[in-house]
Amino acid sequence: MSETAAAVGDDRPEEGYGLSHEMLQAVEEALDAYNLQDVEKLVVPLHSAVMADLLEQLHPEDRRTVVGIIRPHLIADAEVLTYLDEEVRGQVIELLAPEEIASALAELDSDDALGVIEGLEEEEREKVLEALPTAARMFVEEGLTFPEYSAGRLMQREIVAVPMFWTVGKTIDWLRETEGLPDDFHLIFAVDPMYRPVGSVRLAHMLRSKRPVKVGAIISEDIRPIPAEMDQEEVAHQFRQLSLVSAPVVDKSGRLMGVITVDDIVDVIDEEAEDDLLKMGGVREDDLYRAVVDTTKSRFAWLGVNLVTAIVASMVIGVFEGTIQQIVALAVLMPIVASMGGNAGTQSLTVAVRGIAMRELTSDNAPRVLWKEVLVGSLNGLIFAVIAAPVAGLWFGDWMLGLVIGSAMIITLIAAGFSGALIPLVLERLKVDPAVASGVFLTTVTDVIGFFAFLGLAAWILI
Amino acid sequence: MSETAAAVGDDRPEEGYGLSHEMLQAVEEALDAYNLQDVEKLVVPLHSAVMADLLEQLHPEDRRTVVGIIRPHLIADAEVLTYLDEEVRGQVIELLAPEEIASALAELDSDDALGVIEGLEEEEREKVLEALPTAARMFVEEGLTFPEYSAGRLMQREIVAVPMFWTVGKTIDWLRETEGLPDDFHLIFAVDPMYRPVGSVRLAHMLRSKRPVKVGAIISEDIRPIPAEMDQEEVAHQFRQLSLVSAPVVDKSGRLMGVITVDDIVDVIDEEAEDDLLKMGGVREDDLYRAVVDTTKSRFAWLGVNLVTAIVASMVIGVFEGTIQQIVALAVLMPIVASMGGNAGTQSLTVAVRGIAMRELTSDNAPRVLWKEVLVGSLNGLIFAVIAAPVAGLWFGDWMLGLVIGSAMIITLIAAGFSGALIPLVLERLKVDPAVASGVFLTTVTDVIGFFAFLGLAAWILI
Repeated sequence: MSETAAAVGDDRPEEGYGLSHEMLQAVEEALDAYNLQDVEKLVVPLHSAVMADLLEQLHPEDRRTVVGIIRPHLIADAEVLTYLDEEVRGQVIELLAPEEIASALAELDSDDALGVIEGLEEEEREKVLEALPTAARMFVEEGLTFPEYSAGRLMQREIVAVPMFWTVGKTIDWLRETEGLPDDFHLIFAVDPMYRPVGSVRLAHMLRSKRPVKVGAIISEDIRPIPAEMDQEEVAHQFRQLSLVSAPVVDKSGRLMGVITVDDIVDVIDEEAEDDLLKMGGVREDDLYRAVVDTTKSRFAWLGVNLVTAIVASMVIGVFEGTIQQIVALAVLMPIVASMGGNAGTQSLTVAVRGIAMRELTSDNAPRVLWKEVLVGSLNGLIFAVIAAPVAGLWFGDWMLGLVIGSAMIITLIAAGFSGALIPLVLERLKVDPAVASGVFLTTVTDVIGFFAFLGLAAWILI
Repeated sequence: MSETAAAVGDDRPEEGYGLSHEMLQAVEEALDAYNLQDVEKLVVPLHSAVMADLLEQLHPEDRRTVVGIIRPHLIADAEVLTYLDEEVRGQVIELLAPEEIASALAELDSDDALGVIEGLEEEEREKVLEALPTAARMFVEEGLTFPEYSAGRLMQREIVAVPMFWTVGKTIDWLRETEGLPDDFHLIFAVDPMYRPVGSVRLAHMLRSKRPVKVGAIISEDIRPIPAEMDQEEVAHQFRQLSLVSAPVVDKSGRLMGVITVDDIVDVIDEEAEDDLLKMGGVREDDLYRAVVDTTKSRFAWLGVNLVTAIVASMVIGVFEGTIQQIVALAVLMPIVASMGGNAGTQSLTVAVRGIAMRELTSDNAPRVLWKEVLVGSLNGLIFAVIAAPVAGLWFGDWMLGLVIGSAMIITLIAAGFSGALIPLVLERLKVDPAVASGVFLTTVTDVIGFFAFLGLAAWILI
């Protein structure tokens, strides 16, 4: 007990920065000793974000035990749920009754509550919704009518809006007297009689204006309302593009519905970046916390596609079986050409996929970028031809073999650069996500061209 | 002219969302026709972010012409510089005199000015600093004393801080009367006599409190000051981890120096995400706007490393030259095993690299993750063995060949899963960036094991 207590003490100063190794160990030791009271003493005082980290790091069985212990706390401090990884959150929520989830969610901001609820199974969701207080339920149900990953799902419903004709003094008095306003807000929106946003005033500006001034006189009209249906990637792009801090969200008739602030965008950007990285690596989603069988299933598809393309490449080799039979050195050297092609292509591909995601590579500059990739491919092809040719020549004592591998290198690297940039552009045009599918096509192209160029030239020149 | 005018008109409603295709074309046409007045009329009214997009998209020569035309505007509205890609910004700044750059920068917030200046060459930087007004110069010079990519480079120096003992009324009056406060702020910091932050009040809270209340009574003390030396990735992690909106930055003695807000973090997160994605793709930085020779150079290194590892893999094949001579089918099939290993390994690698970057994969859960990868590798290895074995058997009419490829598939996929997770963990421990170096090691391992398992089993079983 003294040990775990010391661990808690040690952890304090750092607590805010994440879960410490010592804390995790202390909790695991207390769990192993079935010392549930100690577990409670250790876990309950943690910051919600750190508690979430802890739940993520624990073994699933331990996680169940801890959730059982801190259940009342979890319902009172639902923030923890918002910090959890989606996979783990699902597991935690399964352990709570719908009424418990509902009473936890009622404490959260509308956007956070919606974020938790949209991850629930249909049936569970219904039950939780029924148990929610009417106001919160209305916000959530309205939120669910918007498409997944849209501005409507992202926005916070708690906003502060006043009529144009109010004065600064009246507004400040109203803010002071009114109950139930959001805890924190940065902008006050000015709305017309139809509740359409016409401008916004920053609080700092409001505070520094004289009381008799009309709100309409100090608003900024550059508010760029976001339709609630807009996809969240588009919303993130707009925030990034114009360095926005917040933007009002409007419904189809232009009525003010909510507000999106830049801190909501951080999560979207993280998700997007994760998406692109994971997709390019051939995994559909972050499966760190997933069970073995689920992970195997989710990775199977990509490997299956790769098996097919690998067989296609092998068939190219199969065409040249006779050639290889005569010169076995070809079998030894051919993976070098294909591997260089694959890597050079992946370089172009990565820059192109990132450029498309950031809207910097468009149909306007595509021809220039393609042409540049061809030039870069030629230059690097030439350089590596000059390196690889003598290596192969010396290795097998055959200078013509060096000539073959050098020429194949140039052809393959040009094709790799060109197709590395072209494939994502074409997929984008066909409305297929370039991050997810480009890799398969690219390696098929570079393997086929690499093997064909090398073995074909060998058959032609050496035999 | 009427055409370009129409294009401007069309573009307006969309202007905020980025550069339209029509606008770019109109500018390019005006440039081709040497119609410099039209160019000016088209470009000057654009939003700074859109103008930056336009400059990025133009050919370098056209870019030079446009910068020449809009030069006075560029100096008056330096925002454009902050929106530019670093590569392009360097090219634009080269076209301006140090005094012009200085007068442009004087208009910017301290963090933005610092961001532009830190990208300049040493000599140019000195000249610009000399030309800056004293106050701005002091901020920038102080900023430059902090390490690159640190909180000190990121923070905004314009802050609002008041003593603890002031009342709400006094603070509001002071805010109303004082000139030269920042344009926008969200928090007011309360400081002690040593100017160390002791808490913060949100403006919304300040506005809704009664005038006689002491600032000290309404502050939140949960301010989590950030040392100015802290690396920006760590800062971003802290913001993300605790869902912060802003945090004060302090110097070594704890004195309040500036503030970092979540919108600064968006750029850091974008950079980080870009870094990881690009490094895993084997490119050092976003080279979309780079010249051909520079791009070739920057990609050369990675391809060079890959050539060496590809030769190592080839040497493994070389060991089995005799075996391949006897059974050419092996040369046809061997790339399939290596390719499946490479892809399965990349899947594990991607999840591990992302997990390390997000601090979700730590030494605490590493053993569990490694074991999971072995299990996933075994399962998928088994499944693909069952698929590949009959394919190979039918293709070459040799069922023993099917047995060989199936067994090699299982061995390779287990090794791939294990090393895909292990390599980034080891590199992280050795303080090498796992995103940049993992790929090379992984493909070497999967190629070597793939070729060795397949050809070795073939030599053992078939001959």
